[in-house]
Amino acid sequence: MKLAEIGEFGLIARFSGPFLRGLPPRTTGIGDDCAVLPWAGGRRLLVTTDMLVEGTHFLRAKISARDLGHKSLAVNLSDVAAMGGRPTAAFLSLAIPTDIDIAWLDAFFAGLRAQARGAGVALLGGDTTRSPGPLVINVALLGEADAGRIKLRSGAGPGDALCVTGFLGDSDAGLRILLGGKPRNRDEAALVRRHDRPRAHLAEGAWLARRAAVTAMMDVSDGIDSDLRRIMERSGCGAAVDLDALPLSGPLRRTAARRGWDTRELAAAGGEDYCLLVAVRRGAAAAIARAFGRAFGRPLVRIGTITRARDGLRYFSAGRPAELARRGFDHFKGN
Amino acid sequence: MKLAEIGEFGLIARFSGPFLRGLPPRTTGIGDDCAVLPWAGGRRLLVTTDMLVEGTHFLRAKISARDLGHKSLAVNLSDVAAMGGRPTAAFLSLAIPTDIDIAWLDAFFAGLRAQARGAGVALLGGDTTRSPGPLVINVALLGEADAGRIKLRSGAGPGDALCVTGFLGDSDAGLRILLGGKPRNRDEAALVRRHDRPRAHLAEGAWLARRAAVTAMMDVSDGIDSDLRRIMERSGCGAAVDLDALPLSGPLRRTAARRGWDTRELAAAGGEDYCLLVAVRRGAAAAIARAFGRAFGRPLVRIGTITRARDGLRYFSAGRPAELARRGFDHFKGN
Repeated sequence: MKLAEIGEFGLIARFSGPFLRGLPPRTTGIGDDCAVLPWAGGRRLLVTTDMLVEGTHFLRAKISARDLGHKSLAVNLSDVAAMGGRPTAAFLSLAIPTDIDIAWLDAFFAGLRAQARGAGVALLGGDTTRSPGPLVINVALLGEADAGRIKLRSGAGPGDALCVTGFLGDSDAGLRILLGGKPRNRDEAALVRRHDRPRAHLAEGAWLARRAAVTAMMDVSDGIDSDLRRIMERSGCGAAVDLDALPLSGPLRRTAARRGWDTRELAAAGGEDYCLLVAVRRGAAAAIARAFGRAFGRPLVRIGTITRARDGLRYFSAGRPAELARRGFDHFKGN
Repeated sequence: MKLAEIGEFGLIARFSGPFLRGLPPRTTGIGDDCAVLPWAGGRRLLVTTDMLVEGTHFLRAKISARDLGHKSLAVNLSDVAAMGGRPTAAFLSLAIPTDIDIAWLDAFFAGLRAQARGAGVALLGGDTTRSPGPLVINVALLGEADAGRIKLRSGAGPGDALCVTGFLGDSDAGLRILLGGKPRNRDEAALVRRHDRPRAHLAEGAWLARRAAVTAMMDVSDGIDSDLRRIMERSGCGAAVDLDALPLSGPLRRTAARRGWDTRELAAAGGEDYCLLVAVRRGAAAAIARAFGRAFGRPLVRIGTITRARDGLRYFSAGRPAELARRGFDHFKGN
């Protein structure tokens, strides 16, 4: 049987079962943004790991070494943000092709170090080796959180408001621009920058984690069309999304108009925005959104509602059912 | 500047400096088998990570999927063994080429799971992705240890006895056999098995960690010629090694005689034996070796003595200075 037949999530489901039986107490394994382990007192240890492979996740000719260093850590920081945690220590594994020289690595580490410093993360170890093919970067990141404040994917319930902490679709638009050549103007350069230098929403995640009415969080890595299905699986619910409500940046709106792109497809199925997807109890949603706006000077944008499981994932536009032509990303099936 | 000019250890030295300044209290970073972090009470959290790259660390045609799953975890278990710790949780990242199918992955996970179960390790997360080139496997492993019993590379002092917990050279001999074709007899099959299915010396490491006279430990991964230099650097000392004392297995002795191989080169410069290299205070060495023999039914073999830093690493044979034609392994310089 081929991997493409079962896909990335089928693969995880196939192999995670035996590993999830008989876990130690107070431990959460495969299936959330981070694993959660017991720690001192009422704290929990968070662990996440992400692998970036040249030719799959990035093209070395299209991203600077410094930005790649930044991004390698940022995508992991985003997983800790999605739990409401504080990142603490990183471990970097690098498989390095022979055509990479020390100057390239200097820039890569400068980008990584700047991200680490900004997030209060210590690089405590790793592994370096030669690669006969692509550059491969794996970061394992530790974090910590208060046991009572961790937000899992599994807590959402019907009626909860579904919100995001930032614009959707920018990163995927940036990728399209890169794959087609170079950015042609400032808007396009801004989108490329959003793709190359994502910002993990650590402060937003920590703030939301302190709100008891926040029932579930995850980060937007494969696009909300894919990511939402993970929340639905874990929470045993469905979701209704208003495609007209997906927050679009000015650069994305203008660039899509110029290039004739469908912004809704970019925003719903495009990945790597690394903002947070959040479920909030209905009664508290408006007050939390107002307080979020005051705290961050940007809105917590409501994009839909959690529904019953049997309703599945439904999209609406102008109050009517709508379809997406494109699905969220799956590494073994493609987009 | 090219990587080959500074080598793996030059690379680590170049980039680790800025990351090692201002570490949190009770934290040990880059430079030992595991990083050490504060944990509940008098315990410490251990973290290690290792990346295995097809074409660099293994050839898929030469190792079964099951053995590769076993080995991917075993090399990390060995790092926890070298600290005297108990492994707890693993995180697996896989970059999977398109020609790998589900049956292969089933066998890989079966091997990994058997190792995990035997060592009491839970697989709690990871990342799976497509690879446009080689299969890449990264395991990040957590463990725990009592603060007072952790053995670092940095504690050895002049006069300490230098010992190993198992045979040297078997794994490298197994690799040579594989690279030259197939094993021709039972001895050669045993050596190949030692290469493909290394056993982490967890029980030995935990036992040695309880002995206050054990001053330093590390695992034999790049060959003692390379690994000993790491202990020397961290402990600020030199070492004298008796090449005639390196413990050789029956299969290695007979195979080397048949094939005309130099057993001393294999034992001193060959890597991946994954036994432990241990420094023990002179006065206690004989008693600890006897107790080790009683506990494990195998000897703790003395191979030399820790000396002053200015003496460097010296080899002896039949009481006279000797030279090695070959050096321990460096991933960017080769062997």
